[in-house]
Amino acid sequence: MNTFVTGWGITKFGELWDQDLRSLAVKAGIEAIKSSGLDPEKIDAIYVANMNSSLFTNQEHLGALIASELQIFKPAFRVEGACASGSLAINAGFNAIMSGLYKNVLVIGVEKMTDLDAIQATQALSAAADEEWEGFYGVTFPSLYAMMARFHMRRFKTKREDLALISVKNHKNAMLNPIAQFQKQISVEDVLNATMVSDPLGLLDCSPLSDGAAAVMLSSEKINDHSVELVASEIGTGTIALHDRADIASIYSAKIASKEVYRKLNITPKLIDIAEVHDCFSIAELVAYEDLGFSLQGKAVNDLRNGRFNKDGELPVNVSGGLKACGHPVGATGIKQAIEICMQLSGTAGARQVKKRLHRGLTHNVGGSGATTVINLFSN
Amino acid sequence: MNTFVTGWGITKFGELWDQDLRSLAVKAGIEAIKSSGLDPEKIDAIYVANMNSSLFTNQEHLGALIASELQIFKPAFRVEGACASGSLAINAGFNAIMSGLYKNVLVIGVEKMTDLDAIQATQALSAAADEEWEGFYGVTFPSLYAMMARFHMRRFKTKREDLALISVKNHKNAMLNPIAQFQKQISVEDVLNATMVSDPLGLLDCSPLSDGAAAVMLSSEKINDHSVELVASEIGTGTIALHDRADIASIYSAKIASKEVYRKLNITPKLIDIAEVHDCFSIAELVAYEDLGFSLQGKAVNDLRNGRFNKDGELPVNVSGGLKACGHPVGATGIKQAIEICMQLSGTAGARQVKKRLHRGLTHNVGGSGATTVINLFSN
Repeated sequence: MNTFVTGWGITKFGELWDQDLRSLAVKAGIEAIKSSGLDPEKIDAIYVANMNSSLFTNQEHLGALIASELQIFKPAFRVEGACASGSLAINAGFNAIMSGLYKNVLVIGVEKMTDLDAIQATQALSAAADEEWEGFYGVTFPSLYAMMARFHMRRFKTKREDLALISVKNHKNAMLNPIAQFQKQISVEDVLNATMVSDPLGLLDCSPLSDGAAAVMLSSEKINDHSVELVASEIGTGTIALHDRADIASIYSAKIASKEVYRKLNITPKLIDIAEVHDCFSIAELVAYEDLGFSLQGKAVNDLRNGRFNKDGELPVNVSGGLKACGHPVGATGIKQAIEICMQLSGTAGARQVKKRLHRGLTHNVGGSGATTVINLFSN
Repeated sequence: MNTFVTGWGITKFGELWDQDLRSLAVKAGIEAIKSSGLDPEKIDAIYVANMNSSLFTNQEHLGALIASELQIFKPAFRVEGACASGSLAINAGFNAIMSGLYKNVLVIGVEKMTDLDAIQATQALSAAADEEWEGFYGVTFPSLYAMMARFHMRRFKTKREDLALISVKNHKNAMLNPIAQFQKQISVEDVLNATMVSDPLGLLDCSPLSDGAAAVMLSSEKINDHSVELVASEIGTGTIALHDRADIASIYSAKIASKEVYRKLNITPKLIDIAEVHDCFSIAELVAYEDLGFSLQGKAVNDLRNGRFNKDGELPVNVSGGLKACGHPVGATGIKQAIEICMQLSGTAGARQVKKRLHRGLTHNVGGSGATTVINLFSN
């Protein structure tokens, strides 16, 4: 059995005041169906990824809601794993196809976040942490990642200037991405001088609140020329609360999920040509380089400074602009990552197309502060 | 491939002020593991069913939360399909085992609803309806089902007294269920004289707000004497909004899902020996008799009056006490239904054990006003 991404669709990411949850999801879904060329009758199931439409828009039951709106009355599920929901839904679809259960599965990720103000939205997002041991005491996501950043800084002498390079790179990449929330170049000085959110993370170290949707069609056959194979999908699970971890300079779930992908395919990180990683905060991307084995622990800063992860570097990371500049409509993010990799591997990324030859691309999608990580690996 | 329910665990259902979301889930989970006799190391994945812990307790990311608390660091998902979440998670686990992907899957359903007051909780539940076309205009679940009841009454001359028989039966059954929220006999007069909630549904036509958790272990092998086989699991999807349906005296998704189960197993409804159905409101159980083919449409009232669905009747329905009297902690309900059927089929239901010989048992779990229905069929 094989699984191919045979179609994809994505909306603009940003503050989309004139579009609601369902219209975004339906727009991406229809675009993915059209892009695959598949007769909608042949869709066997719909998996919807969403983190918290309940608090954002008082709407649950998204599987049926979106199936109903698309008039595709097939089994419909909502899958939730906080910020990793998108890749988790791809994992569920992948497993359903690999098992022979379904032949074509539509996976749609959506989040409509800007109907709440920033404080309410920050609270809604904190539902991804441990409410009783973290959220209840006022810990927010910027502060959880700030603790990880402080720890990394103390241990490896990482500087705010190093983290800033990540935001600068991702903003630069997003300049070429028409769906990106921010198509605006920023400098290291901008990052360092931005309003402090949770020391050492300033406003430009943080991904934004976004509305948006992304969808992929997963099929058991390569039904068109742009189809890209999804060759592995692995989930790592770690402790939900930060205080239960032996080490907060890395994310255990990301390490084990990526190792399992490499083991199953009998490859090493050196064979990854391009990646989209979960830069909810600048520190998260730095940690990802190390967790994924792209750099040795404590050494990623050197690779970053040398431009290894730039669009024209040895291993381009977050060519889409990442969560930082492309935006982070939570449920859609993992699927947006998959779409970027599929566009790059199928040579359809247009102005954003990476010049070097690409064979394997990886997505790294983290839930909460790392209790869940899903690694999906694509190949052309 | 086969799938067996090899263990189960369930907490008390009710207003459990001294127990939180995670302690309930963990309690049911550990009991299910112990009941299966399985080494926890052999659990391959955890599926958590929950409708709306986001609004009820500001906690999402339940897959990782509960995996973390159980110290079982395996792939963990939350599956949501409103009030059908429990059976939907069983469906996901069933498919994972039938495909050979996993050998043992722990499925835990939980809902902690009583930390909100009744008005807030009613609003949280309305997230299962179409927020923009129903909830926003003030429609609540009692009123959606009240419209279905009115329609059924007009078309088939169904009376409030008929619906009351269902609540009376389920309360009687719950007298023997130690985990039931209400172990209290009620009369038809009690039901008719109860506070009106949404005409024609009074307070005793409605299932309560409940806290509780239930868990099952699904395994690819029959590892103990009480194992019961899960032979089919089908999902039906219909429109989310009531106004989009041609007929509101029945639930389309329940009809197609049950027909598909009967077709796959080449059986008729006559071969079902016992069932747990989704009586979120008394009318819902009446409609279920008809949708499942237990009675002809418009004729279920006769069967009900004749005692056919009583514990000692030809086809006992809701021996657990149903959602009405056993309680309805939303995410746990579908799993509680499965447990009741497994206890009955394995002859371990104690005082509640149905006397006649049982071979096949069915669960009918409805999401929202019927956009999702999951039918699971068990056999000994």
